[in-house]
Amino acid sequence: MNVVSLIKKKRDGKTLKLEEIEFLVKGFVEGKVTDYQFAAFLMAGFLQGFDNNETSALTSTMLHSGKVIDLSEIKGAKIDKHSTGGVGDKTSLILAPIVAAAGVKVPMISGRGLGHTGGTLDKLESITGFKTDLNLDEYKSVLEKCGAVLIGQTKDIAPADKLIYALRDVTATVESIPLITASIMSKKLAEGIDGLVLDVKTGSGAFMKTLKDSTALAQSLIDTAKSFDKKVIAFITDMNQPLGNYIGNFLEVYESIKVLQGEEIDDLKALSTTLSGAMIYLGGKAESIEEGIQISEEMIKSGKAFDTFIKITQAQGGDVNYLNNPDSYPKSKHNEIIYADKDGYLSEVDTYQIGMAALELGAGRQTLEDKIDPKAGLIFHPKIGDKINKDDKLVELFTDKEEKIDEVKKSINKAITVDVKSVEKFELIKKVLK
Amino acid sequence: MNVVSLIKKKRDGKTLKLEEIEFLVKGFVEGKVTDYQFAAFLMAGFLQGFDNNETSALTSTMLHSGKVIDLSEIKGAKIDKHSTGGVGDKTSLILAPIVAAAGVKVPMISGRGLGHTGGTLDKLESITGFKTDLNLDEYKSVLEKCGAVLIGQTKDIAPADKLIYALRDVTATVESIPLITASIMSKKLAEGIDGLVLDVKTGSGAFMKTLKDSTALAQSLIDTAKSFDKKVIAFITDMNQPLGNYIGNFLEVYESIKVLQGEEIDDLKALSTTLSGAMIYLGGKAESIEEGIQISEEMIKSGKAFDTFIKITQAQGGDVNYLNNPDSYPKSKHNEIIYADKDGYLSEVDTYQIGMAALELGAGRQTLEDKIDPKAGLIFHPKIGDKINKDDKLVELFTDKEEKIDEVKKSINKAITVDVKSVEKFELIKKVLK
Repeated sequence: MNVVSLIKKKRDGKTLKLEEIEFLVKGFVEGKVTDYQFAAFLMAGFLQGFDNNETSALTSTMLHSGKVIDLSEIKGAKIDKHSTGGVGDKTSLILAPIVAAAGVKVPMISGRGLGHTGGTLDKLESITGFKTDLNLDEYKSVLEKCGAVLIGQTKDIAPADKLIYALRDVTATVESIPLITASIMSKKLAEGIDGLVLDVKTGSGAFMKTLKDSTALAQSLIDTAKSFDKKVIAFITDMNQPLGNYIGNFLEVYESIKVLQGEEIDDLKALSTTLSGAMIYLGGKAESIEEGIQISEEMIKSGKAFDTFIKITQAQGGDVNYLNNPDSYPKSKHNEIIYADKDGYLSEVDTYQIGMAALELGAGRQTLEDKIDPKAGLIFHPKIGDKINKDDKLVELFTDKEEKIDEVKKSINKAITVDVKSVEKFELIKKVLK
Repeated sequence: MNVVSLIKKKRDGKTLKLEEIEFLVKGFVEGKVTDYQFAAFLMAGFLQGFDNNETSALTSTMLHSGKVIDLSEIKGAKIDKHSTGGVGDKTSLILAPIVAAAGVKVPMISGRGLGHTGGTLDKLESITGFKTDLNLDEYKSVLEKCGAVLIGQTKDIAPADKLIYALRDVTATVESIPLITASIMSKKLAEGIDGLVLDVKTGSGAFMKTLKDSTALAQSLIDTAKSFDKKVIAFITDMNQPLGNYIGNFLEVYESIKVLQGEEIDDLKALSTTLSGAMIYLGGKAESIEEGIQISEEMIKSGKAFDTFIKITQAQGGDVNYLNNPDSYPKSKHNEIIYADKDGYLSEVDTYQIGMAALELGAGRQTLEDKIDPKAGLIFHPKIGDKINKDDKLVELFTDKEEKIDEVKKSINKAITVDVKSVEKFELIKKVLK
């Protein structure tokens, strides 16, 4: 096989065979295919596309570039959830203990936040002592004991993905559905799961802004999961406004505790229990998603879900005092409030800008090297369609960076549209795909 | 400006501004834009295209990456010709002396042969002593004295083109009309010319196999030349069979001498005098291409053209004995003849394979490092449409490589189709574009 003729084949819109994709991806990982040739291949693939078989081949090659965890010694179904990322999206913290409490194992390997979106690992690490870098034995042992485990990606999970992603990031080849699919699925399949629930976000705070693109990504993820004989359900959910109200690392742990303790936080609770309901269903502990949702509600009401969260946190070295008394957590130096300057209805939120505002306050990072302030972030009170009265509290900011406050206030004000006409509320769950 | 966002812009089919193209190309030459980013940019441009302004911007940036020769001190119009390359195409050797003899200056910077096509430099260097690596002073002095000069590309002519071409070659981004245009024009404009005649080949021995692609390339070259205020005429000419009959380095010098001495070699003479006619017209020494052709004929008949060839060769250090007595040139060790094995009509020639056969015999190179045997090559006797009788001499081979003969004979036999039905002759000049 010849590298240039394979690039040419993809450039001309033809379909590559499994062994041709293996030759390119393995060659790149081993340094036999140069980065400039792989970059040309990625751009050709970006523009000409990859079909289902090619996407599976990419996934499989990236998956087998590293370790595939074998969880067969642990009894019961292992089901994970993956979200494509959004603002205020803390459902992993809520659903992992719910699903574990319901008797389905949740082996979850998560990422860090980057840009406008947060990451589960950063949120967990805002709990003092919480260790996310468990080794394989610890991973299995926590999973067995608590029913769920939440760790970060290790070096030996899909190393090809890390290398390819780094190249995509600097060659404008990130936003490709087949490449995104292979990146997500190669990591998720390495966890040793039996099934996967997907939360594909759509809207102003999502990577996929349109329902069409989000549906295409969901379908691609489903097709690939099925080609590996995994059970799978995908939800396309709204990301035209933050999920819940809290954005920031411990702020999101705080809100998750509220939900786990039974507080009714509309969209956040509904989405969390829908996703956990689907996971319980895929794990064989419910006859339908609806029954799974009912079981989820019971796990909250009975206190079992919160207890499981405490158990997981203890098992991973976290200080549970902050979970039992979240108000005792250290506070930011500055707490500023943005009030409504007129009456009307909240009609539109530039959710990307809200995520970037939280980042500026210290809750996020521009590059993977940046440090995060676990206390920082914001509370975004209104929901689209809500009636707003002049001087209502719209947003509360928490930060140690006094110098950022004015600029962030301005950008938040720009990101919020209050209209005189009333507008309809957004539908939270737009589609279910199986 | 940001590299990734510029790649993204091209990837999404948008038009880049002059300063954006400059930023990328200069950045690449200076090592500030990495080769993998430039490769992604090239592939995005390959698939999304570049418009006329972008092509001019690419050309201009590549041109100004090196020296632009100033020939204003030399009187008279300076007109060059560029051919996109073919098999047996030795028109440069014929038209340069014709045009110079007619009083138009020909400052010609040529390339070497690669793959199935020959190169003017290699042909000239088959004349013992002929120096093609003149410095700038020598270049101007020969041009002034002889009316024409034929040299190779120096390091300081469009260095960006050399770097970009090397990357295109290994990233499957060669066959792009705008990139080909910028590569050709950046080098030609560096010569200090006032006008350019283009010979864009089409057919089985050309880079562009179809009339549509050849026309598109010709139009792109014309548009770009005009954007630099150069006079330009393009001919689209047939390359479905070798031009003339001789293929190989001194073999082509030999055939060029025959034309310059008045021998009627149909297609080769017609094309050479058409191109020289157009050059004489662009140079202001004729009222029309037709008058230019007439003048060309006169330059041959009067012996002035051949005398000029002798003069140029002397000025560039070549041994003119071989021009005056071409039969005295050293001979290949082996001379094999391929005879027709049946009656019929020559209906098709795989001209690419004929070029490759000459290469195998020693006349060409696979890589720029390969050595050439100036004596080697072949004489291809019939033309498409010719009546063939069994045992007619079809092809004569000349080589020192005995071990190649059988294989080359086979591949030549495969490349020639003799049909029972008579076929029409190909039209040599398919289109003229101004």
